[in-house]
Amino acid sequence: MKCRRCRGPAVIEVRRHNAGFCGSCFLRHCREQVRRAIEDHRMIAEGERVLVAVSGGKDSLALWDILEALGYEADGLYLGLGIGEYSPSSAAHTRAFARRRAGRLVEIDLPTDLGFDIPTGSRAANRVPCSACGLSKRHLFNQAATEGGYDVVATGHNLDDEAAVLLGNVLRWNTEYLGRQLPVLPAGNGFVRKVKPLVRLGEREMAAYCVLRGIDYIVEECPMAEGNRHLGYKEALNAIEERSPGAKAAFYSEFLDKAAHLFAPGAAAARADLRSCGQCGAATPGEVCAFCRLRARAGASS
Amino acid sequence: MKCRRCRGPAVIEVRRHNAGFCGSCFLRHCREQVRRAIEDHRMIAEGERVLVAVSGGKDSLALWDILEALGYEADGLYLGLGIGEYSPSSAAHTRAFARRRAGRLVEIDLPTDLGFDIPTGSRAANRVPCSACGLSKRHLFNQAATEGGYDVVATGHNLDDEAAVLLGNVLRWNTEYLGRQLPVLPAGNGFVRKVKPLVRLGEREMAAYCVLRGIDYIVEECPMAEGNRHLGYKEALNAIEERSPGAKAAFYSEFLDKAAHLFAPGAAAARADLRSCGQCGAATPGEVCAFCRLRARAGASS
Repeated sequence: MKCRRCRGPAVIEVRRHNAGFCGSCFLRHCREQVRRAIEDHRMIAEGERVLVAVSGGKDSLALWDILEALGYEADGLYLGLGIGEYSPSSAAHTRAFARRRAGRLVEIDLPTDLGFDIPTGSRAANRVPCSACGLSKRHLFNQAATEGGYDVVATGHNLDDEAAVLLGNVLRWNTEYLGRQLPVLPAGNGFVRKVKPLVRLGEREMAAYCVLRGIDYIVEECPMAEGNRHLGYKEALNAIEERSPGAKAAFYSEFLDKAAHLFAPGAAAARADLRSCGQCGAATPGEVCAFCRLRARAGASS
Repeated sequence: MKCRRCRGPAVIEVRRHNAGFCGSCFLRHCREQVRRAIEDHRMIAEGERVLVAVSGGKDSLALWDILEALGYEADGLYLGLGIGEYSPSSAAHTRAFARRRAGRLVEIDLPTDLGFDIPTGSRAANRVPCSACGLSKRHLFNQAATEGGYDVVATGHNLDDEAAVLLGNVLRWNTEYLGRQLPVLPAGNGFVRKVKPLVRLGEREMAAYCVLRGIDYIVEECPMAEGNRHLGYKEALNAIEERSPGAKAAFYSEFLDKAAHLFAPGAAAARADLRSCGQCGAATPGEVCAFCRLRARAGASS
């Protein structure tokens, strides 16, 4: 197979595009996909300051790398979750990357700075770990972005992630979530704008990008995510993609084109019902936001 | 495990209900599910004449059996598709069932009565066999019901079928199909009402029903369906169901409850654009309906 761009020998095949790329054209292809996602969905305007949520994994480190390559002013934010061997290792990968690129890295450590870790917090709040972790990340990324004067938070959700979340939302017809499963969540209600610039790139492409760029990411998945539903949805979509290459990308992009707007009114109604958390001021449907409740329960049990 | 109803020994387990049933309570359970589907969706009114589309497979024979057990006046309609060994065998199973029950069976044979078979027709029309077959069935079932003075056509689509079709429609966000993927399609535009009374019962339950009732159905799948996308969607949903029993039923029923109405306007707009086929008078978006085009092409090539 030849490189689609320069006709040299291809080293990476992207089956859904029915195309191969040589190493340097593949890197250009990835950056081009991110550029197009940012442009099509108006994710980041010129001169805006971006805070990239980095975990030490392939997606978030590649995202940071690509945003810098595209000329954006992007700092990293790493959140220490206090998960066994996994957190120190992911922190080490993140710091090594930041050092090599001389990128500015903001760090928040849940155990040191907030007094709890994800394993304790999720047990205390009787939530599955991925749920406790997700809500902590959303809360703290937003807080750090607001306090640091950033215009936008960028996360490394790739096409595989978004398609799997979409499948989960569709399987339960969670119309409120469907109404806000967009590559850009606009600012409002005390939330900084959130964007997902990797939605045009798959998991395999992100891994290949890191290998070609010499980015040493943490390969292990978080041990607490093992066997969760999200991974089951990814497997189901992979089986479908295997039979029909391109099915996953079509599932996500056709959703944005043809269906997302149908669910928007429901999501807007839910947003209109938000008020301010009595403790931290964040927008929440209840009296106290889920993060403050999690923190209180985790503190009480530790 | 004990029978949920009579507390005798259970012989059939229905995992999504987390329940077991003895043989006779299981038969009652199946009939009850059909009764509820008919009632909830107002499928068949008292005194209406029902034409059941029977293929010789477990679903359609069980449906015919259950409708009779529930007291409906139901005749069977069998369509000979001219598919190798499969068609004669499925016809034999259907006739044997009808004879034993003394049910009235109407038969249409594509090769004899219409001059083409599915393998030839699909090749000539350049359609995948399942597509040529589906459109022929829809056309001829409706025609036979109209001519025979039936109020409603009942098909044996079960929960697994409907969930797989729904997944296929969702993966492509085919909003027009999503808007009419309902357990009842009302009469109109020259179409007789169409109903799917088995939507509350899964594939495994239908097979067990037939075994317990001594219904000798054709076990082989149609050889032309092998490897089609629909079977891939079934496998994907089965993998999800394995991890989360009940996921498949929730996917379908929550669609009806929470999302189907969002797609209704698009389907209604497509319906409004229909006109009469210049050859047979059936409602169609084009000049000549897909069935007449298929028949013409198949005739020309044979």
